[in-house]
Amino acid sequence: MALADPPPELGRRLLATRRLTLDLAAPLSDADATIQPMPDASPAKWHLAHTTWFFETFILRDHAPGYRPFDERFPFLFNSYYEGEGERHARPRRGMLSRPSLDEVRTYRIHVDEVLERVLPALSPELLDLVELGIHHEQQHQELFLTDILATFAANPLEPAYGRFEPAAHASTDALQWTEGRHGLVEIGAPAAGFAFDSERPRHQALLHPNAIADRPVNNREWQEFVADGGYSTATLWLSEGWDWVRSERIVAPLYWDAEGTAFTLAGRRPLDPAAPVAHISYYEAEAFARWAGARLPTETEWESFAATADPAAGNQLDRAGPVTPSSGPGPFGDVWQWTGSAFLPYPGFAPAEGTVGEYNGKFMCGQFVLKGASCATPRGHSRASYRNFFPPSARWQFTGVRLARDS
Amino acid sequence: MALADPPPELGRRLLATRRLTLDLAAPLSDADATIQPMPDASPAKWHLAHTTWFFETFILRDHAPGYRPFDERFPFLFNSYYEGEGERHARPRRGMLSRPSLDEVRTYRIHVDEVLERVLPALSPELLDLVELGIHHEQQHQELFLTDILATFAANPLEPAYGRFEPAAHASTDALQWTEGRHGLVEIGAPAAGFAFDSERPRHQALLHPNAIADRPVNNREWQEFVADGGYSTATLWLSEGWDWVRSERIVAPLYWDAEGTAFTLAGRRPLDPAAPVAHISYYEAEAFARWAGARLPTETEWESFAATADPAAGNQLDRAGPVTPSSGPGPFGDVWQWTGSAFLPYPGFAPAEGTVGEYNGKFMCGQFVLKGASCATPRGHSRASYRNFFPPSARWQFTGVRLARDS
Amino acid sequence: MALADPPPELGRRLLATRRLTLDLAAPLSDADATIQPMPDASPAKWHLAHTTWFFETFILRDHAPGYRPFDERFPFLFNSYYEGEGERHARPRRGMLSRPSLDEVRTYRIHVDEVLERVLPALSPELLDLVELGIHHEQQHQELFLTDILATFAANPLEPAYGRFEPAAHASTDALQWTEGRHGLVEIGAPAAGFAFDSERPRHQALLHPNAIADRPVNNREWQEFVADGGYSTATLWLSEGWDWVRSERIVAPLYWDAEGTAFTLAGRRPLDPAAPVAHISYYEAEAFARWAGARLPTETEWESFAATADPAAGNQLDRAGPVTPSSGPGPFGDVWQWTGSAFLPYPGFAPAEGTVGEYNGKFMCGQFVLKGASCATPRGHSRASYRNFFPPSARWQFTGVRLARDS
Amino acid sequence: MALADPPPELGRRLLATRRLTLDLAAPLSDADATIQPMPDASPAKWHLAHTTWFFETFILRDHAPGYRPFDERFPFLFNSYYEGEGERHARPRRGMLSRPSLDEVRTYRIHVDEVLERVLPALSPELLDLVELGIHHEQQHQELFLTDILATFAANPLEPAYGRFEPAAHASTDALQWTEGRHGLVEIGAPAAGFAFDSERPRHQALLHPNAIADRPVNNREWQEFVADGGYSTATLWLSEGWDWVRSERIVAPLYWDAEGTAFTLAGRRPLDPAAPVAHISYYEAEAFARWAGARLPTETEWESFAATADPAAGNQLDRAGPVTPSSGPGPFGDVWQWTGSAFLPYPGFAPAEGTVGEYNGKFMCGQFVLKGASCATPRGHSRASYRNFFPPSARWQFTGVRLARDS
Repeated sequence: MALADPPPELGRRLLATRRLTLDLAAPLSDADATIQPMPDASPAKWHLAHTTWFFETFILRDHAPGYRPFDERFPFLFNSYYEGEGERHARPRRGMLSRPSLDEVRTYRIHVDEVLERVLPALSPELLDLVELGIHHEQQHQELFLTDILATFAANPLEPAYGRFEPAAHASTDALQWTEGRHGLVEIGAPAAGFAFDSERPRHQALLHPNAIADRPVNNREWQEFVADGGYSTATLWLSEGWDWVRSERIVAPLYWDAEGTAFTLAGRRPLDPAAPVAHISYYEAEAFARWAGARLPTETEWESFAATADPAAGNQLDRAGPVTPSSGPGPFGDVWQWTGSAFLPYPGFAPAEGTVGEYNGKFMCGQFVLKGASCATPRGHSRASYRNFFPPSARWQFTGVRLARDS
Repeated sequence: MALADPPPELGRRLLATRRLTLDLAAPLSDADATIQPMPDASPAKWHLAHTTWFFETFILRDHAPGYRPFDERFPFLFNSYYEGEGERHARPRRGMLSRPSLDEVRTYRIHVDEVLERVLPALSPELLDLVELGIHHEQQHQELFLTDILATFAANPLEPAYGRFEPAAHASTDALQWTEGRHGLVEIGAPAAGFAFDSERPRHQALLHPNAIADRPVNNREWQEFVADGGYSTATLWLSEGWDWVRSERIVAPLYWDAEGTAFTLAGRRPLDPAAPVAHISYYEAEAFARWAGARLPTETEWESFAATADPAAGNQLDRAGPVTPSSGPGPFGDVWQWTGSAFLPYPGFAPAEGTVGEYNGKFMCGQFVLKGASCATPRGHSRASYRNFFPPSARWQFTGVRLARDS
Repeated sequence: MALADPPPELGRRLLATRRLTLDLAAPLSDADATIQPMPDASPAKWHLAHTTWFFETFILRDHAPGYRPFDERFPFLFNSYYEGEGERHARPRRGMLSRPSLDEVRTYRIHVDEVLERVLPALSPELLDLVELGIHHEQQHQELFLTDILATFAANPLEPAYGRFEPAAHASTDALQWTEGRHGLVEIGAPAAGFAFDSERPRHQALLHPNAIADRPVNNREWQEFVADGGYSTATLWLSEGWDWVRSERIVAPLYWDAEGTAFTLAGRRPLDPAAPVAHISYYEAEAFARWAGARLPTETEWESFAATADPAAGNQLDRAGPVTPSSGPGPFGDVWQWTGSAFLPYPGFAPAEGTVGEYNGKFMCGQFVLKGASCATPRGHSRASYRNFFPPSARWQFTGVRLARDS
Repeated sequence: MALADPPPELGRRLLATRRLTLDLAAPLSDADATIQPMPDASPAKWHLAHTTWFFETFILRDHAPGYRPFDERFPFLFNSYYEGEGERHARPRRGMLSRPSLDEVRTYRIHVDEVLERVLPALSPELLDLVELGIHHEQQHQELFLTDILATFAANPLEPAYGRFEPAAHASTDALQWTEGRHGLVEIGAPAAGFAFDSERPRHQALLHPNAIADRPVNNREWQEFVADGGYSTATLWLSEGWDWVRSERIVAPLYWDAEGTAFTLAGRRPLDPAAPVAHISYYEAEAFARWAGARLPTETEWESFAATADPAAGNQLDRAGPVTPSSGPGPFGDVWQWTGSAFLPYPGFAPAEGTVGEYNGKFMCGQFVLKGASCATPRGHSRASYRNFFPPSARWQFTGVRLARDS
């Protein structure tokens, strides 16, 4: 990471990011913020505290002279997975923490923010890089905050709504169009300058074979056709591991769908919008749908090349606190993350970041697939064409969808 | 059940019981009251709502003309295990309910209490019996409330305290004395008049063989000797199933003990009181300790005969809202429930209560052992010599201890 | 145990017992004898070796001067559960032993038998008691041999037959009659003289309440009525634990039944004999059926009193090697073991046998129910009224049935 | 697949392959051949039958007029995973099949071989392609036969030997040398002519970045240094998923190693040969070792380019029936399969084979890593540079090792 921003700009962004997280929590009760709906998800309160622990640990504790930790027991509670930072609370038990309360966590945030603001002007360029990383880290948790609170409310038979939004306009759904992709040698990955995660680097040459890519993600209407055509009961459409998953988990539709054409959303249960991108599908489902449709998933290189000149700040992304849902926005960014057929593996020449933050990405390079783009829950400004999101193939609680590709 | 109380007395007890439950919840935040620390335990909030559902369903819905349920979705959430009352929320997912909030549950209680109070004078004797049952049912949940909140706070590395109590007096621990029990034919079980659960009836003859029973429960000092003597690592002391449990769960001491001579209590972590009865032990541990001590567990008949003339309202039991802990009180009642060597099985002539409430006890007569007495968390007035508490042999989160017996 | 037999008689019985085990294995291939169909069952070969290990260890190793073990590695393989005898091969991995081969195990048997026969005349009365125990131990394994090989062949889609037997006569099924039981004080348990397992002692007084007991076990025709009446889908008929079992294991009929009115037997798949006692049912099923029939299970005291004057050597029991199946024999013994409603717990004054063989029964006195009688696979001569067989409530692979009782 | 061989040559190879499988089974008893040591492995007998089922189904049943199946029940038993071929015996229950016996399976093989030989001259080129596929399929099962029988004998505390081989020469272990790899555009994958699996095609361009690759696999001496240096207890060396695996499975060394410097082999327990390639390691271990050594795993493209001009028929591979073990042979082929850092994913333009055999590879393209080379158990003639073997990252029972690579 090489920092390009002058500190004032960084400080402003830091403040705005920290503020947005607090705003996201505004509609929640202490109890809402305490529940962990499944081991993969975390309580809302935990997201607020963990992102604060990140700044407290890597900036204040290590580099702010005389800094006294807000609470010496918090690192044990709010370290996520950094082995270099010692023992920590078991991940599946994060929902056991009614204390500290949501209000106490807010106080923790204020405490850390005040010290951060004070020391910011004096930080070295290397530490400003860490602050930049902390901002992007917190933006990732903002997206997880929304998907985890959706999972939390979905686990309650009362189906509470996180907020309200306008009913979708029910746009007409145009037939899918194909765009010819580039082929031959291209460059992908993040350039050396500007912020990017270590896994996006180094920028390097990659080889593209002739391909075409769809101009929009698969939508709910098309997915309903797949369901109606027996997609979930036709073994030969599925990867072997996917078919085992379909049967053992009794999967018959995307997560949050019911049999009456509705889906549970951050605004409660709502009729499916046929024109909106399908969301909350696993890699297995994306891959089976593509086979059914006579297509395939794009590689991450194909996708990045396709999106290289698009504006990553456009599309349906998160601008302010409140409920979000995929709509039918144009462009490769926004609405839903798009599964690629590429496993999350190191780029040629990849080197993890120095220090404990080097555990950020590299150690997850096994058993995961790359997703590209951005979703309706991604904070605007966080995404870029080189971004490599990743999840295991069975994950469905994110806003995950599919954009088809084919050989050309 | 044949009701002996005149209604005014019943109404007063109903009111007092309903009040105590609310008072028990007073120190809790909404989040505290939402957590389910393990599938066997329930959130505090759930106890408040479920006991209310019991009255709403079996009295108001069925017998109060024109009663409209507080919320039509609550029966699905707050039915515990009554198959006759239809589908219900999965027990291990009770911790997913941040909504209704603790305050909404309090409102639910007020709503039901008001109608209950209004209809009480007009209820038939049979319905007054059901009200009586509802009071005792709620008293049982008061005890569970305390043991479940203890489990909840124990699951938090911060180890919050539910309240405060005075340090124990560290009484000297007298040597255990033996009392000769009766033998020959005796009568046990609840008489036909007065309240008792169906499982305590009918009162019937039973045969006692010569026996002696200890004058007090095993205390912490004695248990520490068992630990120091390798009790938890000597296979031949244990039941086969118990030894499997010790090894697979890596059990080395009673629940909530640490290696430094302290135990986690409702008042936080505290030094062990050597004179206090050991608590939070499983049947397996009680049985192994007895073998180590050259004794055995009493049968339920022996225990009931031993306690037949004791005052069940004496001893260290629950009088008011607040934290409790075993101390060294005299008498068979109070401090800790005492494991017997008797499986929980029907008495000769047992007949379950009529209607859905007949699911109360009979269907659990498999895989459980009877405990006698009362604990520091049992509401005073709830216990009697014929009472048959029951838990599976691995259960430890109740205030469970052991009183030794031997052949004579 | 106090030995009553003069040694010549004992020697003859020892020889006959050892011979029968070998004969039972005659129809099996080495591979048949190697398979372990589930953790509860053992390979046929293992039964042959384990019963031999019992004599080798408790008689020859400890009391035959100069005895050299057949193979020093066998005790690790063929100790079942005696903690006092040290480490042993994990029970669920018994099916991994293609070596030693069935023939090698036969050689092991011959080796031990020869030394046994030589030392027998010189054994002390105490050791002759152990030989007697060894005979009864081996008889128990003869029954397990047959039930385990039935489970083994049932696990093979080819459904091989262990042998052949004549089709049942399809006797007419008489209506069930009730016999009034004794009440008041009775004596149960084994007398001090003669062989019995430690768990059957001491003989002691017990109290009977007025009861009646059915003159024959429930038969297949009656069980088919239970199935047709929705027995397996009516929650309120079942113990709570039993209902969980029915649903999680998807139980819809006794083990080995199919939907076409046949059952898998030691002679392959056969039409159900309506007049034969139902077999291969769990405690849960027996208990639910009794409730459906307006009856209950007998207690072990009721059963023992009922059978006190019957000839335990009568009925359909095992006389020679070959396939067996329940038929409709008269009397309390034979055809099927009968579940009682009594948990397997120590009798008043129970003391385990001395030494390692004291692990035989006592350590299993938790989580099991007593079965009385004898089955078609019980070696004739092995059973008696005081016999206490025991299995966990979910066990079905034995020849287990049900005889109804009721209050009188 | 396009067949290049003239039929006589094909017939000769078919015969030789069918013969070798039988010879591999020669040292086994019926019981040895029946055991399934774990769900991932299959009984020896099953391999013999399944490979026969493959020819019977795809050639004889579909294309030999008037062919009558040897046993109509066998397809249910011996179909592995072809959904297009209908229901089949559950994979984890393959060890339940004492019948058919090993001899009956041999008879099944003879029956099918005789018909195959008779119809072979008349088969169309497309069917000869299927015969060719059947030969390669059977060669794969020959390797699995050896690794599964090793796992079978390892599961027996008696540690039987499959056969004997000479003790290793204990060659001196030279320091590892690095070979510079090609970079820029290269071609990988199988050409259109000659036999290859569908997953190796199409041959296509790939881009290499500067790299170097080790001249030999990591050996046992080097792995012992990794162990001694705390490799298995240093979290930061491991992938997150790998570290979870190490802790939950308590992994401290390669499979089959003990703490005394020996390893269990097909010739029984033997001292480790320090110069031999380490075998029986998972992807997790290979990846952690590489990090510890300051290197990385090669990509499949790097490996294929490195081995492009090597003779795939050289090295320590399987020539005749008997026990095998890695030694220190030269060249990229033989001794151990080598984990690459490449996930098993479709090549650009990949199309599965037509018909049910199209389930051969494509449906496993998820959750697996590619291994290159060949092992001591790979039938000589079966391997080629374009071969893509694949296993999940936790698999250790194959002869799997590691060849290091690094950026250059």
